[in-house]
Amino acid sequence: MALNPVISTLGRKLRLAVIGGGPGSFIGAMHRQSARLDDRYDIVTGILSSEPEKSKQAAGELGFASDRLYANVTEMLDAEASRTDGVDAVAIMTPNDSHYEYSMAALACGIDVICDKPMTNTIEEAASLHQKVQETGLVFCLTHNYTGYPMVRQAKAMVMHGELGTIRLIQVEYVQGGKADEEKVFSPENWKFDPVRGGPSRVMGDIGTHAHNLTRFITGLEVDEVAAEIGNIVPNRLIHDFAGALLRFDNGARGSFWVTQAAAGVENCLRIRVSGSKGTLEWMQ
Amino acid sequence: MALNPVISTLGRKLRLAVIGGGPGSFIGAMHRQSARLDDRYDIVTGILSSEPEKSKQAAGELGFASDRLYANVTEMLDAEASRTDGVDAVAIMTPNDSHYEYSMAALACGIDVICDKPMTNTIEEAASLHQKVQETGLVFCLTHNYTGYPMVRQAKAMVMHGELGTIRLIQVEYVQGGKADEEKVFSPENWKFDPVRGGPSRVMGDIGTHAHNLTRFITGLEVDEVAAEIGNIVPNRLIHDFAGALLRFDNGARGSFWVTQAAAGVENCLRIRVSGSKGTLEWMQ
Amino acid sequence: MALNPVISTLGRKLRLAVIGGGPGSFIGAMHRQSARLDDRYDIVTGILSSEPEKSKQAAGELGFASDRLYANVTEMLDAEASRTDGVDAVAIMTPNDSHYEYSMAALACGIDVICDKPMTNTIEEAASLHQKVQETGLVFCLTHNYTGYPMVRQAKAMVMHGELGTIRLIQVEYVQGGKADEEKVFSPENWKFDPVRGGPSRVMGDIGTHAHNLTRFITGLEVDEVAAEIGNIVPNRLIHDFAGALLRFDNGARGSFWVTQAAAGVENCLRIRVSGSKGTLEWMQ
Amino acid sequence: MALNPVISTLGRKLRLAVIGGGPGSFIGAMHRQSARLDDRYDIVTGILSSEPEKSKQAAGELGFASDRLYANVTEMLDAEASRTDGVDAVAIMTPNDSHYEYSMAALACGIDVICDKPMTNTIEEAASLHQKVQETGLVFCLTHNYTGYPMVRQAKAMVMHGELGTIRLIQVEYVQGGKADEEKVFSPENWKFDPVRGGPSRVMGDIGTHAHNLTRFITGLEVDEVAAEIGNIVPNRLIHDFAGALLRFDNGARGSFWVTQAAAGVENCLRIRVSGSKGTLEWMQ
Repeated sequence: MALNPVISTLGRKLRLAVIGGGPGSFIGAMHRQSARLDDRYDIVTGILSSEPEKSKQAAGELGFASDRLYANVTEMLDAEASRTDGVDAVAIMTPNDSHYEYSMAALACGIDVICDKPMTNTIEEAASLHQKVQETGLVFCLTHNYTGYPMVRQAKAMVMHGELGTIRLIQVEYVQGGKADEEKVFSPENWKFDPVRGGPSRVMGDIGTHAHNLTRFITGLEVDEVAAEIGNIVPNRLIHDFAGALLRFDNGARGSFWVTQAAAGVENCLRIRVSGSKGTLEWMQ
Repeated sequence: MALNPVISTLGRKLRLAVIGGGPGSFIGAMHRQSARLDDRYDIVTGILSSEPEKSKQAAGELGFASDRLYANVTEMLDAEASRTDGVDAVAIMTPNDSHYEYSMAALACGIDVICDKPMTNTIEEAASLHQKVQETGLVFCLTHNYTGYPMVRQAKAMVMHGELGTIRLIQVEYVQGGKADEEKVFSPENWKFDPVRGGPSRVMGDIGTHAHNLTRFITGLEVDEVAAEIGNIVPNRLIHDFAGALLRFDNGARGSFWVTQAAAGVENCLRIRVSGSKGTLEWMQ
Repeated sequence: MALNPVISTLGRKLRLAVIGGGPGSFIGAMHRQSARLDDRYDIVTGILSSEPEKSKQAAGELGFASDRLYANVTEMLDAEASRTDGVDAVAIMTPNDSHYEYSMAALACGIDVICDKPMTNTIEEAASLHQKVQETGLVFCLTHNYTGYPMVRQAKAMVMHGELGTIRLIQVEYVQGGKADEEKVFSPENWKFDPVRGGPSRVMGDIGTHAHNLTRFITGLEVDEVAAEIGNIVPNRLIHDFAGALLRFDNGARGSFWVTQAAAGVENCLRIRVSGSKGTLEWMQ
Repeated sequence: MALNPVISTLGRKLRLAVIGGGPGSFIGAMHRQSARLDDRYDIVTGILSSEPEKSKQAAGELGFASDRLYANVTEMLDAEASRTDGVDAVAIMTPNDSHYEYSMAALACGIDVICDKPMTNTIEEAASLHQKVQETGLVFCLTHNYTGYPMVRQAKAMVMHGELGTIRLIQVEYVQGGKADEEKVFSPENWKFDPVRGGPSRVMGDIGTHAHNLTRFITGLEVDEVAAEIGNIVPNRLIHDFAGALLRFDNGARGSFWVTQAAAGVENCLRIRVSGSKGTLEWMQ
């Protein structure tokens, strides 16, 4: 196998633009690092702030070429779409309420999209985006990154190959403590507590989506029925910070689902246990 | 402190009779070993089988005195109650449907009771037994043994002293695999799958009672509201083998509860996580 | 199998006397608890202090019969040897320099011996005791208790059955922190720091003996050659508190040996790793 | 802080050449990935094989520019030294016996060096290289990469700040299984078993150097005296596959050192325990 299959195939690396992840962002550095890790991408441009000047400065600090310093997403997508060496894909890591708009815009320019979860803040936007992807035939990826762990893939393979027998019981939990502090409330600077920008059910968008995705990825089962409570356990919140559910899957399996960002002191505990007629597997991040 | 406080106080050890736990029993040896461990008890007699001859033989094998080999529980309780050196207490470790009868009989003879959980198979029997205990003023203990772990006591102390702040979220699970096998079904020999002797909700009587007790013991909170599914996930069962619930506690905390004996390959996983406004504790057996 | 094989065989439990382990002793309670655990022994008498009055009081607190309260070891051994219901065995848990004397005395009275390690403080005493055991044909046990762990027995079985292939490399360590404190030095009350009573190489007698025994037990190999340093790393000690060695075993295997009681903050870390041509096993207490 | 301090300082990333790490190499991909991770380097050229044609093909697969495809190290160093945009540094990841030659050559061209450990195969070469580095004033780094772990840095900080008190006892081990197989012996294709190319004491060059470096890095102590056995435990080897040592450090501390690549089935176990008068720390990879 060639040392770099992308270069061997295309004669070059893929060209990537980023939207979001500027100064002060945790996830921005993660995204860019991950893009570099396997040597498949060159990150050649990006919009790193909603303020044009701040964005251009950050773009310069990342070493983007001077003819690729753009004021905003629209300008960037238009310019890149018209370059012969334009970007192949954009990676979107902005607040949740802009995922829909930027994804639609990129697809409209013929550019593939790597979008942070949650896909959108409403089911209507998700359906519309889904339709757009089908119409354009472009690639649209959600960063359900936990499916990339070798152990998670091994878990999926074990279920698929019948090593666990018929799946009967599934427990999944994602417990964090980042929103446990009562002092942490909505402010103009803190979009993570804003029910408009982050969506009202932050806990589901932030981590419930990972728990649900992990369950589906490993077991191949879909949830048929749900009994749930979703709300805020920390007082004076406008967003949800915990969700519990009892699940019935399409094959008759039963499940327990528990996610929260209000467990004081807990770092990042994602855990799944899948029991079948022949055995049980458990994975913990 | 004296080397043995019971001997220092009474001038002798406590005298204990056992009911149940004969040949083939797992829990019988555990009970007797535990009774010996701290040197507080002499096990002097017992009924080790519902068949008089088998019981007497087992009693002899355990070294009980020849004038203390009894045919059945009634005979034993009557004889011991009339001896000047009669037993101080009985430990009951029989199938669940006999807990009520034997406890009532011992209390009627003025003998303290150590009874395996669940207390009874019905709420009516439990209430009647509770009343009897209050009338007689005797000691009635349920073997909620997990509360004896130093770490569990530490957990309770931490909650009580406010180290976790206001309790907000509680997750408890007790997952076993002993009833995962589809071949294991009710038969005359196997009372554990008999909905009459073991009670219909075996999973709740066997381990749900431990999970619930542990939650109350550590947090001091009571469950106010429950949304639950209890049933059998292994086909052709007459007893329950899993239960999931979402809980609301009397202080407004929310909880998740998950117990099963049908998780193939899992030994004995009892786990609780309690989150408060200041911190989270987790304990796993 | 009978519920209690000793009772089935003898018609009674074994009768045990203890020497040592009185008030303030850690190991005394462990010994007595362990003797009760499997229901093979009745502890019927003992000498619990070198001061006759203190010993008799402690004996009373443990519930020994009034005609079995003795002033000292000699009196006890003589009296028990002449009773028809005399003790079958004595368990010796006194300072190391008395192991030889008490063991010899018990054997001379025809009584089996369970002796704490180290066997004696000198090789000459050990040889003399060994000869006495052979002459009398009595049972002499050293409490190399770690060989009782199921996992250690499993390890031994794996080596014996060739699952690891030819044994090549052995690492064993026993690291404790009980003697890390510089303030802890020899005083008349503290025999553990007395090079006469405890022996000069406390660390070898206390835990080196366990590490060596564990190595021999699991691998079946004997040490042929040693390069070692033994001494005290904590200043102003009259006893050894650490020992390191490179080992050559009789089959050509090489080993590393490290024991200390001066690792501040470490509780009780006993660990062994055995590597053979087919695999490696590791056990940690 | 700027998003990329190197770009902010130099106006560009550092330019790196690699020597070694071509097709089939494990460490080559690691080196290149690590160089990309923090976005400080552009890998612009390299020699990926001692065969010119294979090297040029691999270089093309990695996307190096066509005017930077060189036949051998000398050609590359000369060409790069004369370019205005020549490389700032070379990373050397070739068999151990070439470290000296390539390092000296790069330094002679005024190029900084990142060299895999061991530095050289002989102490004479090491001294000569050390002198060259001092003469040129260039940067020479050895890839003692384990010192980069945050926990290792924390360990060093704890020792330096006196949290462990006076260091008394140090245990370090590095245990691997990659050379446990008796079938694995020297062949022309397998330089790792060649006592010339890899050096006779492979185990010391490969992992002993890491263990020694880790000890010095964390404790700041130097080894004063050594009692050691180094050899091959797997038969028919021309290289060493294990080494054990007892150590005396310059402050009087004592230590145990154990490294092997012949522990069948062990992956990669690097562990250090440092005990001082106030406490003990333990780190395991």
